[in-house]
Amino acid sequence: MSALPESLAGLTVAVLGGTGPQGRGLARRFALAGLPVVIGSRSHVRGEEAAAELARATGAQVTGADNEGAASAGDIVVVAVPWEGHGELLSGLLPFLAGKVVVDCVNPLGFDKQGAYALTVDEGSAAQQAQAILVDSTVVGAFHNVSAVLLEDPDVASVDTDVLVLGDVREATDLVQDLAGVIPGVRGVYGGRLRNAHQVEALTANLISTNRRYKCHAGIRITDV
Amino acid sequence: MSALPESLAGLTVAVLGGTGPQGRGLARRFALAGLPVVIGSRSHVRGEEAAAELARATGAQVTGADNEGAASAGDIVVVAVPWEGHGELLSGLLPFLAGKVVVDCVNPLGFDKQGAYALTVDEGSAAQQAQAILVDSTVVGAFHNVSAVLLEDPDVASVDTDVLVLGDVREATDLVQDLAGVIPGVRGVYGGRLRNAHQVEALTANLISTNRRYKCHAGIRITDV
Repeated sequence: MSALPESLAGLTVAVLGGTGPQGRGLARRFALAGLPVVIGSRSHVRGEEAAAELARATGAQVTGADNEGAASAGDIVVVAVPWEGHGELLSGLLPFLAGKVVVDCVNPLGFDKQGAYALTVDEGSAAQQAQAILVDSTVVGAFHNVSAVLLEDPDVASVDTDVLVLGDVREATDLVQDLAGVIPGVRGVYGGRLRNAHQVEALTANLISTNRRYKCHAGIRITDV
Repeated sequence: MSALPESLAGLTVAVLGGTGPQGRGLARRFALAGLPVVIGSRSHVRGEEAAAELARATGAQVTGADNEGAASAGDIVVVAVPWEGHGELLSGLLPFLAGKVVVDCVNPLGFDKQGAYALTVDEGSAAQQAQAILVDSTVVGAFHNVSAVLLEDPDVASVDTDVLVLGDVREATDLVQDLAGVIPGVRGVYGGRLRNAHQVEALTANLISTNRRYKCHAGIRITDV
């Protein structure tokens, strides 16, 4: 574990939907980096079970709660829930997320026989929907394209990908870039405003196609940065 | 110049809109790789001028024409025109493009004080619009995110980026992956079907934001491929 960046000192990271593959993988990496992590789930029992398992596996400080408890406990709150129910969940958490940086990593995708495709979102993107609902929070989009398989694999010491970080508030995108950077191998790279989140979310459909073709766990790097 | 892949032997590449930055840059790299290149422009005079300039600069085989002449001459036809007028141009070229692989690299973007953003396209994407119009051609999306500045710079020997190649016909996407690969440093990577082209086109808006923030010419690499 290397030293955390100053910006993250003393901060607790909550991961809503922390029992799904993406949430578990991110929670694992944040915990391994030395950040106090709270795993949120619809059921506090499942949240606590996932936290206990992760704490055992990593020796790190991980606690579990329901999503409301996790939202309350986190200084930075990562939203890694399924797209289905995304808006409803956030609407219910409005008071608990006020004043906080909320990191949305949800990809609104559909699947059929031809693979994955991007769904249309009225607000433009999951991240914009989150910001439209969470009027008292600062929403940042990030971690859309990171392979959950690689995040969860204890044999993967370094994850070979960049994380595009999207948002309208510089202080918040800087913080989330720092958060991405605690995962070994990962860089957080500024990728534009929230209005340009849709295509980064949707790009996950392309990476799924790439994964199928090449039997890999594709990620992206931004060159010349 | 290294040997061309067998798939490209004897093929002529036409670049419609070959007098704009992206078209010029791609034409330059294809010509340098040893492919016969025809630069198309709205005006055949400007097409011929651009071709003469590129032939002088590179010593390669480059000719110029209007877009109709270039579409007729090309075995592979790259569409690098502005989004404005894209559909109208292609509608007029329907008979000349029949039976050919048409490579669309057009990014439907808008610009305002906050930078670039993705435009809504009725057909879903520029590539899908092209395929909807060009019913007798095979449309492939590619070269969306490659920096025109780097392509055009004679001092840039190797362009550090991958090209996501999108399409519904394997033979055509394989061919365009080979075409991308003739540019030193570049790999063509399969990125899914045409229905997933929108986000790759739109991602250029994110890279423009990244360029502004970091003063760079950002590209993308796909990892684990």
